Amino acid sequence: MTLIKSQQIISNIQESKTDEFNADHSTKLIPFGQYLFQRIITAGTKSIFGVPGDFNLPLLEYLYEPSLIKQGLRWIGNCNELNAAYSADGFSRYSNKIGCVITTYGVGELSAINGIAGAFAENVKILHIVGVARKKDSRPNTSNSRKNLHHLVPRLKDANFIGPNHKVYYEMIKDKVSCSTEWLDDINTACNKVDKVIKDIYRYSKPGYIFVPVDLVNQLVSVNNLVNEPSISMKDCLDKPSVTTLNEITDIICNWIYQSKAPAIIGDVLVDRYEANKELNLFIKKTQIWNFSTVNGKSIIDELNPYYMGLYNGDEGAPSVIERFLQCDLILNFGIDANEINHGHYTFKYKKDARIIELHPEYIRFIETDTNTEKIIRGINFVFILEELIKEINPVFLNFQYDSKVKAYTSQEVYPDIENVDSEEQDITVDRLTKAISTFFNPGDVVVSETGAIYFAFRDLVFPNQLKYIAQGFYLSIGTALPATFGVGIAMQDYPRCHITDDTVPTDYVPRLILFEGDGSAQMTVQEMTSMLRYQVPVELFIWNNNGYTVERAICGPTRSYNDIMSWNWTKLFEAFGDTNCQYTVSTLIETRSKLAWKMKQLKNKKERDNIELMEVQLGVLDYPKQLQSMVTAAKVRQKLETMEDHPAA
Amino acid sequence: MTLIKSQQIISNIQESKTDEFNADHSTKLIPFGQYLFQRIITAGTKSIFGVPGDFNLPLLEYLYEPSLIKQGLRWIGNCNELNAAYSADGFSRYSNKIGCVITTYGVGELSAINGIAGAFAENVKILHIVGVARKKDSRPNTSNSRKNLHHLVPRLKDANFIGPNHKVYYEMIKDKVSCSTEWLDDINTACNKVDKVIKDIYRYSKPGYIFVPVDLVNQLVSVNNLVNEPSISMKDCLDKPSVTTLNEITDIICNWIYQSKAPAIIGDVLVDRYEANKELNLFIKKTQIWNFSTVNGKSIIDELNPYYMGLYNGDEGAPSVIERFLQCDLILNFGIDANEINHGHYTFKYKKDARIIELHPEYIRFIETDTNTEKIIRGINFVFILEELIKEINPVFLNFQYDSKVKAYTSQEVYPDIENVDSEEQDITVDRLTKAISTFFNPGDVVVSETGAIYFAFRDLVFPNQLKYIAQGFYLSIGTALPATFGVGIAMQDYPRCHITDDTVPTDYVPRLILFEGDGSAQMTVQEMTSMLRYQVPVELFIWNNNGYTVERAICGPTRSYNDIMSWNWTKLFEAFGDTNCQYTVSTLIETRSKLAWKMKQLKNKKERDNIELMEVQLGVLDYPKQLQSMVTAAKVRQKLETMEDHPAA
Repeated sequence: MTLIKSQQIISNIQESKTDEFNADHSTKLIPFGQYLFQRIITAGTKSIFGVPGDFNLPLLEYLYEPSLIKQGLRWIGNCNELNAAYSADGFSRYSNKIGCVITTYGVGELSAINGIAGAFAENVKILHIVGVARKKDSRPNTSNSRKNLHHLVPRLKDANFIGPNHKVYYEMIKDKVSCSTEWLDDINTACNKVDKVIKDIYRYSKPGYIFVPVDLVNQLVSVNNLVNEPSISMKDCLDKPSVTTLNEITDIICNWIYQSKAPAIIGDVLVDRYEANKELNLFIKKTQIWNFSTVNGKSIIDELNPYYMGLYNGDEGAPSVIERFLQCDLILNFGIDANEINHGHYTFKYKKDARIIELHPEYIRFIETDTNTEKIIRGINFVFILEELIKEINPVFLNFQYDSKVKAYTSQEVYPDIENVDSEEQDITVDRLTKAISTFFNPGDVVVSETGAIYFAFRDLVFPNQLKYIAQGFYLSIGTALPATFGVGIAMQDYPRCHITDDTVPTDYVPRLILFEGDGSAQMTVQEMTSMLRYQVPVELFIWNNNGYTVERAICGPTRSYNDIMSWNWTKLFEAFGDTNCQYTVSTLIETRSKLAWKMKQLKNKKERDNIELMEVQLGVLDYPKQLQSMVTAAKVRQKLETMEDHPAA
Repeated sequence: MTLIKSQQIISNIQESKTDEFNADHSTKLIPFGQYLFQRIITAGTKSIFGVPGDFNLPLLEYLYEPSLIKQGLRWIGNCNELNAAYSADGFSRYSNKIGCVITTYGVGELSAINGIAGAFAENVKILHIVGVARKKDSRPNTSNSRKNLHHLVPRLKDANFIGPNHKVYYEMIKDKVSCSTEWLDDINTACNKVDKVIKDIYRYSKPGYIFVPVDLVNQLVSVNNLVNEPSISMKDCLDKPSVTTLNEITDIICNWIYQSKAPAIIGDVLVDRYEANKELNLFIKKTQIWNFSTVNGKSIIDELNPYYMGLYNGDEGAPSVIERFLQCDLILNFGIDANEINHGHYTFKYKKDARIIELHPEYIRFIETDTNTEKIIRGINFVFILEELIKEINPVFLNFQYDSKVKAYTSQEVYPDIENVDSEEQDITVDRLTKAISTFFNPGDVVVSETGAIYFAFRDLVFPNQLKYIAQGFYLSIGTALPATFGVGIAMQDYPRCHITDDTVPTDYVPRLILFEGDGSAQMTVQEMTSMLRYQVPVELFIWNNNGYTVERAICGPTRSYNDIMSWNWTKLFEAFGDTNCQYTVSTLIETRSKLAWKMKQLKNKKERDNIELMEVQLGVLDYPKQLQSMVTAAKVRQKLETMEDHPAA
């Protein structure tokens, strides 16, 4: 396709207006490129992340279609594709909409792949659109199909004779890090395939891929799908259970709750991914059941509710929380996601004879530990059950006999004796910092944490109500948080306050976006700071400068050179990255406890939140939070035991 | 493995000395981690790139084994894994040794994958070592195998019940971007598998992978392989042809040359990858055959030889070069690599009835265009033929009748009338810049170019002798050049002047390392500039600041926002990246032609080359080299013709 051609087509289609789709226009045709973006908008997404490349440029031209711009469609140019994927990930984690990223064949899509894998592992909705070679180039047995195209790896053998496998990258991701994958080789099925991938992404809450040949985007397609289905929401994509099934399950759960003396609710990560945070908190409020956060699901439950009992993470959590959890005879685990980080390396334990109900998007599972029996009902999403439970549960029949001496969890249980952070001019330690952070957030703030050393300290802090906490806590790819925060900031522009579901946050309060980032992690993806500047995303950006990979030092090689990094002057970065006269950014070097206290107080109470604040906070190289140390020690003990099992004679 | 254990093992093995391997020590055992690094050293590589991660830390501990350090082994810590892969790529392109990169399971290996794919596409030798989970974790049907490990994507369905596919990432790369792939699940075969992958990498000149379970590295292995094969060079890995075959092929080639009136040599990229540059230039010197460079093979042929006729790129090259090429009746294409960039989008044309000989690592192919017949002899590497040709060719029998009016190619043919760069204070244009560059290099310099707009201008410049030119000219992943240059610099520390094969470069001349980098490309991988500082790699770093993706603007959307980037203050970067008082770097903003001329003169004649010089050169947003413009125009015409073929009625 030539540039001139694409411009002609664009001017031809400028007439089309979205509201026309609502009328009967089954014969109306629009270019596929326009269809794709229109469908993305109708699925709830307005900002598109990515990097241009010659195989996606003709598609990107449709970003400028006036009717799409009118609906808020915008291009968000990232510095590289991995960062773009991370940004789309953050965008979706905040908004629960589909984060969309566009890359180009090979060079772009492969650069993004680790961000997609992370989203797959952590149930984040991303649509990855890859611009690929023309249909005619990949048609088999033609002179074109034998040509080695740029961005495409040739065959290992006979590369000068046999053409490349045009779908080599498609085969790499299909069924591995993508829940739904379509290569659009036929214009007649292209629209249906797009719709299918979008629905699968919502249904599975995982990334999906669409491969778009560069010569497909200007071909005309019917608007039928848009007329027949003018919007797609997540709920539209879930199989609705029959009334019978719904009642059957709800009745069992209600009865088990009525029979329980001390039930517990776990709010796990899939509650958030399936947009049921509000409902879960309503259910807690209505039933007054003791409730626990998880590592990956932290901040789903409003932790200031009087029945909040802390974050449960098996043997790796706080002893006082374990003690409470082991008093419970019925566990309702909403949105369960079992993995080694979230389940304390699979050390979850229960009270003797406890009953457990796992509520998952694909199944509801009832376990009776006294008889060691279980029943699984598949094909039902827990969100429908939760909605029904709120309606059906009758507080009159509740018969809880919780130990009245047990109080709600407070951070002081884990951090009883940390000195006051602003007491004097002294080095900042992780423990003191944790204490300072415990009073730093306001209700409704959005906090992103990198998965470095300090991340571990957050687990046992009680967050204010309606705080949205975002961290890649299972896949653990360092460097994710910085570009993800940029994506969160874009989503906060598109859907302001969408995470706030009750009235505890004053309507005139502008939620802050706060990033906690390690220095080693930040170096991985640092260029995306410039995008925060370019798209004016106000953020409070804490760089924990501890001179290296402290989280790795805790595991192995505390003083090894492989854990060292170059020492940066973080406060100089924004000037280099384009804020020439520091008009949009304030960068502050913080070496003492008193300066930290002063700055945190200033930020917490600031009225205008219209700039970027970067704080470089200097920490000790070997200063780990106790939670990280416990995890490492536990892992070593576990491995030693396993080794002894393997070699009992040793 | 615990840290304590690994330290014990390391102290136990401190006794071992390399020279011991030369004696009969068939019963001697060393830890596998030591074996792996010892084998890498014996294959010629001393610097290891990468990023630490919990699945590779125990392996990294062996980097500090004294006997290995004594042999020069060192860890080069990159800022992220993609950059590490690019660095290993540059390391290998410069040295022709194996570039080694170590990453961790999932998060690391996937981040690096685009760099590996680029190396695969461009025949670059990389060994990618991935630290993966313990053997016992991936053993099927155990309680461990059902656990969702961090860094590993869970299954799409039933993820809470069915364990992950531990080899999911292995399956992604095997036989796709890796020429040889081994997962070391058995200590008894581990050493042989390591050796096999290393040999395959040399044989195919492509990347290979070794997946190392974290609990394998301390297990003991025999030193047998090291004793029996104390070193591995590329030549050791190629199948040696029989004397009969060698003679048969050499005879045909010599006869064809003797019969030819106007033969031509093409020096293509695989000549460089198989370390035959010196031999090819010797052959040219001995035969005085006209010779041509290629896009991907530029700088293999010393372009100041009196028979150099320019860079041939089919229809997309300079007309005067095409004219010369079409006079030739025999084409000897050494190291041919056919792809759309290298072959001018497959527009190579030949004189009527010309004979063609393709000399490839896997085959020798004889084509007679008059009878349209061809003969392929497979399984023979051209380097053996080339060596034999040098010996066998007898100048007495040469009977060339070249047009005596034709002179050697000079850059002036393509750039006849560019004004003198230093004439006045004016804007710098790409054309003027190209002229300035044409006299900027010294013999023996090492030049790396990003594949941005300006890269296209280099094709038609004549380079000084013994200049090594490095560019990712086919896979074309922007952002590669900056970390690749860092890798080149590390290789230049390890193997100083190894690219210099004759005596035209004075022995006291220290070759410069010069990078030409676009601003949009640089933003992709910019953090690796800090590694140049950390490992003291002296480099002249030109940033062409044209405010965006100018190479894309030439193709589509010249003024579209998707081609814009944030405008940076490039001269402030090194201070932020750790050169606090500008002790190791000089950063210069260049806005005028006179300042450019002054700076280039200074750099060319500088005596001490012990620091980093960064030049931010401001260029026009829409200023493209003519070669880029021609390529885009040709592509549009070609696509229009193809569309007409498809739809003749249109």
